[in-house]
Amino acid sequence: MRFTKMHGIGNDYIYIDCMESMPDRLPELAREMSDRHMGVGGDGIVLICPSEIADFRMRMFNSDGSEARMCGNASRCIAKYVHDHNLSHNNPINLETLSGIKVLSLNMAGDNVKSVTVDMGEPSLNKDDIPVVNDDGERCMIEKSVVTPYGEYNVTAVSMGNPHGVIFVDNLEDIPFENLGPYMENHPIWRDRANIEFAQVLSSGVIKMRVWERGTGETLACGTGACATLVASAITGRTGRMATLKLRGGDLDIEWMADGHVMMTGAATEVFQGVYRRQC
Amino acid sequence: MRFTKMHGIGNDYIYIDCMESMPDRLPELAREMSDRHMGVGGDGIVLICPSEIADFRMRMFNSDGSEARMCGNASRCIAKYVHDHNLSHNNPINLETLSGIKVLSLNMAGDNVKSVTVDMGEPSLNKDDIPVVNDDGERCMIEKSVVTPYGEYNVTAVSMGNPHGVIFVDNLEDIPFENLGPYMENHPIWRDRANIEFAQVLSSGVIKMRVWERGTGETLACGTGACATLVASAITGRTGRMATLKLRGGDLDIEWMADGHVMMTGAATEVFQGVYRRQC
Repeated sequence: MRFTKMHGIGNDYIYIDCMESMPDRLPELAREMSDRHMGVGGDGIVLICPSEIADFRMRMFNSDGSEARMCGNASRCIAKYVHDHNLSHNNPINLETLSGIKVLSLNMAGDNVKSVTVDMGEPSLNKDDIPVVNDDGERCMIEKSVVTPYGEYNVTAVSMGNPHGVIFVDNLEDIPFENLGPYMENHPIWRDRANIEFAQVLSSGVIKMRVWERGTGETLACGTGACATLVASAITGRTGRMATLKLRGGDLDIEWMADGHVMMTGAATEVFQGVYRRQC
Repeated sequence: MRFTKMHGIGNDYIYIDCMESMPDRLPELAREMSDRHMGVGGDGIVLICPSEIADFRMRMFNSDGSEARMCGNASRCIAKYVHDHNLSHNNPINLETLSGIKVLSLNMAGDNVKSVTVDMGEPSLNKDDIPVVNDDGERCMIEKSVVTPYGEYNVTAVSMGNPHGVIFVDNLEDIPFENLGPYMENHPIWRDRANIEFAQVLSSGVIKMRVWERGTGETLACGTGACATLVASAITGRTGRMATLKLRGGDLDIEWMADGHVMMTGAATEVFQGVYRRQC
């Protein structure tokens, strides 16, 4: 089975061209191939399939075998893949996902894909959308003070289709990240836990951040987390509606457009191509 | 750059055929390729090179860029590699390493390499060889009681070219492995820390074990650790001189021969072949 390993600022998946045929037993295949010691290794597998309503259809399976709805970092890689592997030279590319059709714009430097911009849709600050437990009758949760065993922090809740809690701090080096991350993820303010972003504004256009992903722990990159952080930063007046978000795995440029959509631009990198002998 | 990803019961390296030419800046290459998110991913790289004194010469670089002397799991994979890739049909194969020439025997099932046996050399129980701090004038450290914050444990010190402390327990499930491992690794009985093996004898020929590797933490497989455990088990009368060692990544059959050499037999698995574009 031919595959291509790619990453979007460190969020790495195994990409499989399924335009002609589809492997079977996908959860088993995802678990086997994602194993970082005995398989190819990756955060999961991404299948590039034909679509009846868009240019391509994406299916994603996490390393635990569960199917994922959509991932901004993976969709950037798909845009680069279909261009570099001559599956399409459309620009933008419409991608069918379990979260609807995503529009991917290739930013070219000559024939090379320099970066990809993904329309990540509109954020919601409405507590019911996130969802947040509403114990004060307010519609949104912006800079709500939360007392923790590690000090008091102000949390802003944002949905990007998934729940985020954004916490701005003076210095990312000074927080007990490994304790605070899981504490905040599981805090009873959330109805179903949340992804937690810790952010430090470096200048009006640059924000450094670390992400504690729900159910996973710290990750190198989280596209929706970067979008949620920019939205929280803009509504609290810390930056404008456009900034570079510096994550552990690399940079994302995020812009919250006048029409409400959040555009995310970042790199997509092919690491290697391989041939895998399936065991399962 | 062409490469092959292989593992020996979960100890996974990137194998590169260097019979014709050698890449440069090997520490940088090892760090880049070993990265599990942005590179190929592995415990390091293994270079298969020509030798003037053996069939092949192995060079190994860990994921941190440091050069390793030798690894039993990797040498099994080399034996399978040179057979399957038609570099040699000798059996046994003599492999030059920084720890001397190792003899690798292929156990065939028809044309397929079923397993590989590695002569791991002779163990030493001499405290000076391990090295252990000698505060009691004894020549060896066998079942020495060590009091820890987690209880009292008996430790047997074995050198397989590297230092091991073997601790037999009644039930591997019952020990505070994550605490005890680093505590024992750094205990002042060792002159330069040690790899720690926790072992439970399941029957006279079967030992289940977990390994805490010096400087690394828990690993799926440690060939010298399995050898040290069999030696400690034999000299304390728990088993004979031959047993199956069940590690987290799989099984190793270990035999302590009458001539003093320890023979280790186990699987070697090719996972995939790939083509990598070097960044550094």
